[in-house]
Amino acid sequence: MAIEIERKFLVIGDGWKQGVSRVRHLKQAYLTNNDKLSIRVRIDGTAAALTIKTASAGRQRAEYEYAIPLTDAESLMRQREGSVIAKTRHIVPVGELAWEVDVFEGDNAGLVIAEIELDSVDRQFERPAWIGNEVTNDRRYYNADLARVPFRQWPAA
Amino acid sequence: MAIEIERKFLVIGDGWKQGVSRVRHLKQAYLTNNDKLSIRVRIDGTAAALTIKTASAGRQRAEYEYAIPLTDAESLMRQREGSVIAKTRHIVPVGELAWEVDVFEGDNAGLVIAEIELDSVDRQFERPAWIGNEVTNDRRYYNADLARVPFRQWPAA
Repeated sequence: MAIEIERKFLVIGDGWKQGVSRVRHLKQAYLTNNDKLSIRVRIDGTAAALTIKTASAGRQRAEYEYAIPLTDAESLMRQREGSVIAKTRHIVPVGELAWEVDVFEGDNAGLVIAEIELDSVDRQFERPAWIGNEVTNDRRYYNADLARVPFRQWPAA
Repeated sequence: MAIEIERKFLVIGDGWKQGVSRVRHLKQAYLTNNDKLSIRVRIDGTAAALTIKTASAGRQRAEYEYAIPLTDAESLMRQREGSVIAKTRHIVPVGELAWEVDVFEGDNAGLVIAEIELDSVDRQFERPAWIGNEVTNDRRYYNADLARVPFRQWPAA
């Protein structure tokens, strides 16, 4: 299994817009989401998938993903718990790596997050001027949490 | 959509065994099962499927079924809620129709149910001597209920 280190940052301004190489439209929602079981429907452009994550006491989380028809995904999403997380993902190459700048819509409109995927913990990476505070470990920014308590409902800082 | 009328009966004795034309091994379990969402994993021989049923207030129940790898089904079943429903289904042709005699195992061992599928409400069908009381509308015999309160836990009549 490949190790994946993902780091997440707030975004300052829109300087990143000049570097966008590609754009994807993503939408996801949870049918259920608790400590034991999470079932997510995801639409990426015209492709759709169902992801099941399970966990039981003392066991590792297992994840199963199945491609499903787009029309199924759309109607399953209507049965969701919480908000749909809709975002436009902008791929912004910087040096050897590529940032993903997610501009959220709907209930999370106003939120812009930049993510970078690293192949080791000590991998060096360039931080462009538009990279703000790191929020990697802030649960509020997790997808599951954004579905439950979307950005527009957050108390003003 | 085809109309399906299924009627369910208790079984008396084992006279049906002489007429068995085919046998299938079925196993199913629920990952979750409540008023809004039911997620079932089913193994039929070496084929496996995931079935999602959703319902929301004032809407019809929708059902989605996806074939999944057998190994996924087996490990998903370990994360179930309630009992695995395991049974051997015996196909017993009688006249133009075929009865399905389900002999349950595990937590439901001791239970034997005969089902028949009819294409209309007023369809006549032959009742062999081994057909006992009808239990079509008795919730205790529903699969979802047998997973929650299996036969071996029923109070003695």
